[in-house]
Amino acid sequence: MKKILLIVCDGMGDRLTDGRTPLEAAATPNMDYLAKEGICGIMDTVGTGIRPGSDTSHLSLFGYDPFQVYTGRGPFEAHGAGLDLACGDVAFRANFASLKDGIIVDRRAGRDEEGLDELAKALDGMVIDGVKVVFKRCKGHRAVIVFKGKDLSCAVSETDTDEVGVKPNKAAPLDSKAASKKTADVLNKFTEKARKILEESKENKSRVAKGKLPANVVLARGAGMEPDIESFEKKYGIKGACVSATSLIMGVCRAVGMDVIEIPGANGHVDSDIGKKANAAIDALKKYDFVFLHIKGTDEASHDGKFDAKKKMIERVDREVIAPILKKVDLANTTVVLTADHSTPLSLKQHSADPVPVAILGDVRTDDVTKYAERSCAKGGLCRICGRSLMGIMLDVSNRAKLFGA
Amino acid sequence: MKKILLIVCDGMGDRLTDGRTPLEAAATPNMDYLAKEGICGIMDTVGTGIRPGSDTSHLSLFGYDPFQVYTGRGPFEAHGAGLDLACGDVAFRANFASLKDGIIVDRRAGRDEEGLDELAKALDGMVIDGVKVVFKRCKGHRAVIVFKGKDLSCAVSETDTDEVGVKPNKAAPLDSKAASKKTADVLNKFTEKARKILEESKENKSRVAKGKLPANVVLARGAGMEPDIESFEKKYGIKGACVSATSLIMGVCRAVGMDVIEIPGANGHVDSDIGKKANAAIDALKKYDFVFLHIKGTDEASHDGKFDAKKKMIERVDREVIAPILKKVDLANTTVVLTADHSTPLSLKQHSADPVPVAILGDVRTDDVTKYAERSCAKGGLCRICGRSLMGIMLDVSNRAKLFGA
Repeated sequence: MKKILLIVCDGMGDRLTDGRTPLEAAATPNMDYLAKEGICGIMDTVGTGIRPGSDTSHLSLFGYDPFQVYTGRGPFEAHGAGLDLACGDVAFRANFASLKDGIIVDRRAGRDEEGLDELAKALDGMVIDGVKVVFKRCKGHRAVIVFKGKDLSCAVSETDTDEVGVKPNKAAPLDSKAASKKTADVLNKFTEKARKILEESKENKSRVAKGKLPANVVLARGAGMEPDIESFEKKYGIKGACVSATSLIMGVCRAVGMDVIEIPGANGHVDSDIGKKANAAIDALKKYDFVFLHIKGTDEASHDGKFDAKKKMIERVDREVIAPILKKVDLANTTVVLTADHSTPLSLKQHSADPVPVAILGDVRTDDVTKYAERSCAKGGLCRICGRSLMGIMLDVSNRAKLFGA
Repeated sequence: MKKILLIVCDGMGDRLTDGRTPLEAAATPNMDYLAKEGICGIMDTVGTGIRPGSDTSHLSLFGYDPFQVYTGRGPFEAHGAGLDLACGDVAFRANFASLKDGIIVDRRAGRDEEGLDELAKALDGMVIDGVKVVFKRCKGHRAVIVFKGKDLSCAVSETDTDEVGVKPNKAAPLDSKAASKKTADVLNKFTEKARKILEESKENKSRVAKGKLPANVVLARGAGMEPDIESFEKKYGIKGACVSATSLIMGVCRAVGMDVIEIPGANGHVDSDIGKKANAAIDALKKYDFVFLHIKGTDEASHDGKFDAKKKMIERVDREVIAPILKKVDLANTTVVLTADHSTPLSLKQHSADPVPVAILGDVRTDDVTKYAERSCAKGGLCRICGRSLMGIMLDVSNRAKLFGA
């Protein structure tokens, strides 16, 4: 039985810019080694022609069907914030925002963090119509709200407006179920109570006295229900660890029961200390049978639409992540997989359904691919696979797959 | 409309040994003819990344979803033993074993067959709590047990222990359903009654008098429920025949309603008279529109982990099975398909999820593949397909597929 190291470079796949993708343009001798000595293919992380989010794609890469377990981003953000959720809890992403005369004047409360910790604490722990409300601040103006109680639903509309100059939305049920009406009512009552608490707080009085925008309203979006999900360990019989600096991805990993290893200096940006993350993943392989290493900078460069920045980030990954892995990991006893969670074409600056390249180094049937990139991997021995099959393939070539039948 | 000949070499797919697979190393001019003149691909018989049993993979190759119809090996072994099952019957594989002072001393009753036919008859036909118990001896120390009655369940634990030096297990329900409790009770009562009958039998007294181990207990495993399965003939409008020497595979074929043609001299081993099987399949094509030919020896060589034996067995199949088929079958009116039910890599000596090669000779779009092997077929025109789609493809190129839509 081998250990498994899964490396996912967020948004690394791309389309052609001047006839080539960033991966094709980048000098990636170490990724190319994986391609040459391993087996390659292309992969639809969620499904062919489906534009994946990073949450749905990672669920799929871990072998869960996002169409079954995913209802919205909220629960995964809540897990990312370190909250415990029970099946049936409903969670939202939230912003502190600024109201003036009932109109939203800034959706991020001026990005000023003064007093937000105290304000978050003041909003945490209410009980409304028998529903316990957990409120936790995240980075900057962001927060998560979790409703804990019976008969809740995530079929409620957002109170966030996505624009300024308007009133916050009233939450409304999105279907005719009683649970949806109840959840919308609780969200509206919470929003109203929170507005009063925030308005009257000394923290907001201090902000206003200094000429700052008040953080006097909470806007919610991304409602989702905590799924009834089988843990990674139960499903596969192995304990997994995650090395990521991205809250949402850490949340997905926590939701499936992986341990999350946080790395100081890793920030999810193009200047993140990804070498430190690689070393943490290499170390984690001593303790865990499955280690997932997530690199966010490739996606950031993609959303910025900068070819050179994406190419450079890919070259950094090759040099600072893949090279030390190839040098330090016991390759005779470890299956190493390199892929992306989705493509983020520079021309779009957002996720696309274009399949991603995948290379598996281990006890595999090799192929003729010598370059790790989208078009070269499409000629590989894996052909075109679905992301939800990747876990099975990795377990199989690591001699850890369960037999179905006799 | 063409006839269809499906040839499945059990466990023929492999991984690399010294840089090549047994199929790549073998001289297979006739298989290569199929590859060159036909269309090739790789196939996940049950699903990508899923390690198939031979039973689940064959169900899938015949177009049935094993996740729907497969609950355990028992019913297919029972069909293999020639028993009739009704939907809802629960069947087990069983061993005659030897108990001493309540402890299992041999799980196979010394592999001594004296008296086993008589003992099997003595255990057949009990009625316990309204459940009829059918007991039939198979080869050697093996047998099958079928429970016929209402409200049965296959969610019961095994009485077999897989080890000696311990007491037989008590069957226990694996879920909270009443049917599971009832079935476990019946199995425990049967085991106890059988123990008494066997203990007091003159056959066992004779065995013991000769210093042999008694066959004084029955150990059950592999519980499965007879599925509500649409017959092959009803599903596809064609009558199928099976040529196989393997009880489990014959059982799968009988379960879907194929006729099974048994060949004296065919034994499922590497020294089986596979030429006789090939001729029987060729003959069967006169009477049947679909003929399935199963060769087991490739899997046997794989489980033994012997590269040369597997290579030789593949070369025997090429020479003694494929050559006469290419010579004697009316290829203008027959679609010929060569594949495997799963890979059994020599390095593992057990089934793996690695896809298998497939070649289809008939009214197909050809490709550039000239060698029948795993890596060459991965470059073929079929790309990577799922085993459950193979029936549809075979029917289609044989101009027998039903239209879906207008």
